[in-house]
Amino acid sequence: MECTPVMDLPEVRPGDDIAELVADRASLEPGDVLTVASTIVSKAEGRTADFADYPVSGRAREIAKRLEAVTGEEKDPRFAQAILDESSEVLIEAPFLLTETRFGHICPNAGIDQSNVPDHDLLLLPKKPSESAERIRSGLEKRGLEDVAVIVTDTCGRPFRHGQRGVAIGWAGMPASRDWRGELDRDGHELGVTVQSVVDELASAANLVTGEGADGTPVVVVRDWEFGDLEGSDELFRAVEDDLVRDALRNWRFDE
Amino acid sequence: MECTPVMDLPEVRPGDDIAELVADRASLEPGDVLTVASTIVSKAEGRTADFADYPVSGRAREIAKRLEAVTGEEKDPRFAQAILDESSEVLIEAPFLLTETRFGHICPNAGIDQSNVPDHDLLLLPKKPSESAERIRSGLEKRGLEDVAVIVTDTCGRPFRHGQRGVAIGWAGMPASRDWRGELDRDGHELGVTVQSVVDELASAANLVTGEGADGTPVVVVRDWEFGDLEGSDELFRAVEDDLVRDALRNWRFDE
Repeated sequence: MECTPVMDLPEVRPGDDIAELVADRASLEPGDVLTVASTIVSKAEGRTADFADYPVSGRAREIAKRLEAVTGEEKDPRFAQAILDESSEVLIEAPFLLTETRFGHICPNAGIDQSNVPDHDLLLLPKKPSESAERIRSGLEKRGLEDVAVIVTDTCGRPFRHGQRGVAIGWAGMPASRDWRGELDRDGHELGVTVQSVVDELASAANLVTGEGADGTPVVVVRDWEFGDLEGSDELFRAVEDDLVRDALRNWRFDE
Repeated sequence: MECTPVMDLPEVRPGDDIAELVADRASLEPGDVLTVASTIVSKAEGRTADFADYPVSGRAREIAKRLEAVTGEEKDPRFAQAILDESSEVLIEAPFLLTETRFGHICPNAGIDQSNVPDHDLLLLPKKPSESAERIRSGLEKRGLEDVAVIVTDTCGRPFRHGQRGVAIGWAGMPASRDWRGELDRDGHELGVTVQSVVDELASAANLVTGEGADGTPVVVVRDWEFGDLEGSDELFRAVEDDLVRDALRNWRFDE
């Protein structure tokens, strides 16, 4: 398996066609997986916003006040409002906002970025990242680049473990996970492992060669990786009833 | 970056020298990262066990009873005892056991494996996986294979997201994470990302080419990946006071 960044992409602007930008710079082969950082997908889709776009509700004002009290740092209630607008559920209010985005991804601040946005205050995540992935995939297909899977990636932290890692937030042209249930080990025992989240692992692999700084390369080609002939599934975000930690957080409040 | 499995490893037995097994089969270069599945590290270190090794405490009996009641499946209290013996804290008792191992890794059943163990009931995780990684690293060095980092990997599930992915549980010859704090984006803004858990991302990348079944290849060489000149840190497992989800789980009980 080989991960190679696509070099010399220009700064992406609203209306840019990512499939075209990539097709002009990378030689893609059938079976390749293309990972695309959500930042450039959002930029192409014009998902920038300004604080002035967010009239503040009582809830956002309360949240911002509590965050200020807990962290001792100034918090703009319009940022809290932007996060609420992008979210279907707030899981943690303080000491930071952890929410579920409307497409099911649980991450701090609904994934809204305050860096990476020239001329605007905020960069929102793509509205429906799997649809974004599908648009890029079919854009490549139209240019004769067939059988390329596309993953839209984000980076975020997680419980229990320090630091951030790459994750998938949208995908097209492949299943999200690979199902090993019923497979046997060398000794003929059924495997302990069940479902492998391959899109997240591909996003993590790509993030190792992406870089975050001024010389970041937001698109990576993964070659010579095969899904294999196991069953696939498109579950990536846990169902509510299957997520004990969500349940625990719903019944918890940060102790100030 | 290239991930290549090491082929033709034999079934690993207690006392086997993993550095020797790998050195005989892979041509390693300075700067390579070697990922090694914890299963074969445990086998080499003789970390097998049998149910008979675990006289059952009242606590283990209680936990097994509750698990039976919740799941409707038979649970061996000796398995619960083995998990307790390997753990420093129980975070979830039901509907499954989520614990922190004595070396800081939070995962179901203290990572104890009931498949993958010929002639025994259980395969425990290595006692101190970073020390295991260091032994393999220095074993390679003795054979003239210098400047190879080693990561001991596990696969496990996570909150919020469905499926399992590869994670690091021990490492040597490189830092666990890469610190981007203070770096600037293209527009000169400070980055939103902070600390990147590179050992976890390497473990995930490797897991894509490892395979889980009878033809699994537990060792992978990652080549042409560079840590770069950013600061590193060896924090991987969150400190208790930094882990809100652990706090929420401590105050939560599964609603039967």
